[in-house]
Amino acid sequence: MVTFKVIILGNGSAVPTSFSNPSSQLLVHENKHFLIDCAEGTQMQLLKYRLKLAPINHIFISHLHGDHYYGLMGIVSTFHLYGRIKPLHIYAPKALEALINHHLEVSKTTLNYPLIFNPLEDFEGKDLYSDAVLRIRAFPLKHKLPTWGFRFCELERRPKIKKEFVGDHKPCIEAIRRIKDGADFETKEGELLKNEDITHAAPCPRSYAYCSDTAYHPPLTKYLKEVNLLYHEATFDNSMEEMAKEKFHSTAAQAAQLASDSQAGELLLGHFSARFKDPSILLQQAQAVFKSTYLTKEGNSYSVR
Amino acid sequence: MVTFKVIILGNGSAVPTSFSNPSSQLLVHENKHFLIDCAEGTQMQLLKYRLKLAPINHIFISHLHGDHYYGLMGIVSTFHLYGRIKPLHIYAPKALEALINHHLEVSKTTLNYPLIFNPLEDFEGKDLYSDAVLRIRAFPLKHKLPTWGFRFCELERRPKIKKEFVGDHKPCIEAIRRIKDGADFETKEGELLKNEDITHAAPCPRSYAYCSDTAYHPPLTKYLKEVNLLYHEATFDNSMEEMAKEKFHSTAAQAAQLASDSQAGELLLGHFSARFKDPSILLQQAQAVFKSTYLTKEGNSYSVR
Repeated sequence: MVTFKVIILGNGSAVPTSFSNPSSQLLVHENKHFLIDCAEGTQMQLLKYRLKLAPINHIFISHLHGDHYYGLMGIVSTFHLYGRIKPLHIYAPKALEALINHHLEVSKTTLNYPLIFNPLEDFEGKDLYSDAVLRIRAFPLKHKLPTWGFRFCELERRPKIKKEFVGDHKPCIEAIRRIKDGADFETKEGELLKNEDITHAAPCPRSYAYCSDTAYHPPLTKYLKEVNLLYHEATFDNSMEEMAKEKFHSTAAQAAQLASDSQAGELLLGHFSARFKDPSILLQQAQAVFKSTYLTKEGNSYSVR
Repeated sequence: MVTFKVIILGNGSAVPTSFSNPSSQLLVHENKHFLIDCAEGTQMQLLKYRLKLAPINHIFISHLHGDHYYGLMGIVSTFHLYGRIKPLHIYAPKALEALINHHLEVSKTTLNYPLIFNPLEDFEGKDLYSDAVLRIRAFPLKHKLPTWGFRFCELERRPKIKKEFVGDHKPCIEAIRRIKDGADFETKEGELLKNEDITHAAPCPRSYAYCSDTAYHPPLTKYLKEVNLLYHEATFDNSMEEMAKEKFHSTAAQAAQLASDSQAGELLLGHFSARFKDPSILLQQAQAVFKSTYLTKEGNSYSVR
């Protein structure tokens, strides 16, 4: 099974505390590393958990509150100082591009690698990223500022042909293509071999979605349908529903309701308010609505199953 | 003796490592807390060492390389989110003001406290800050970008009058003033009491200076004369003198030479290149030139004596 997991670098809300860092996570798919949000201290968190910076080629910023992007310039600079030459792709609200350039101007820095800026506003209904096995899309959340969620979807894979069959029957390239498309195979002796007997079924494509920051927003189910693993903010508990609404954040139970409505597989909670040194109350309240809910813990890794 | 000490929050150079953070330090004088430079992660370092953020009212930024200011917006935001209302004074190169405002604009934030920006360019030969006991001045260093050092000087204090004398002779306010100015005192009985017998001598005023980042620059002695405690960057060792010159940084021995030429009391080394996981070679080379040299250690506090 191909590696598909998320490692939590920060799961706190607006201010860092002695027990949590603000939002950032590393999504790993096979050998590709994607950074999602980049609070102050993200590069230090990578060092702390012995995760490499160099393989990160794509950084996704959900919105322009500082607790989601203040660590970006540190990483941009560190790449430069370590002599990076390969491109870095940033997917973020348009206004961030001028801010990055403003920082580079005051320090009179010309990066020695291409920084390719992709404004999220330009990608409605389009893939932010795609390769042979994965595609990434953004979708709008409901927050004070324009904010995006991200969904990482594995693409449908074709079945693998069994080694013994290839050894025994030496099929030509055209026959291999047909078998991968689902055809049966007729041997030289005229025997019909059923497709399911000569292939290993392709693994079901999996997906991961990230929703932070957002008010409870039922229309999001459209983007989250049957997601295997959903990370959703859970800033507040049930007693703070009014405050959540006012501040365009969610309670843990609302995150769970959205997971349930979206027929998600599993739910990860994060973006905890600093008042929850022990967020177990959030877990209880969410599990009452959606059983397969987990609290994230900084440094922990969660597989997409 | 009034508290006068510096606590090291970060003493590494450009990039954070698993063993060091970039430049930041907290200077404490009596009950006043001053932050000098503010690399990414400074607010996390304050949390780590259980140092309070709230008493900081003045932040000094030496120059606009990211490893000296990327943590500033995090602190500005945290103050806002914690409901600060008292003013925050920032002393920094002029160009930083527009950058701070740019950050506030993209997040549509209006701070709920006054942020008072003081461009260092405007303070040549003037005090950045002064009160009854302390005055702070900036002076130009020699670096790739315009860069300033800072000197914190205690003011000359007047002697304290001995309690027993006040009890015995009940001097009037005018007499007290004269005694503090150095006069002797004539008792009602006509006896002359010498000033040194009725007062405790005022403590010698002390001073602290911060020099990072800078090439070795002998004219700095003008600003550093007889400083009690000097923090000077020591990015490189003796074998890298050429590189130090090229990059406008100093070797440890050059820092020591400057301390010696300035007749400094003690020298603290910092801003170590990431290649020195163990910087003891820097200490050896500096001590060969100036004996009272110490390596800084993150989290440690150094008194101005």
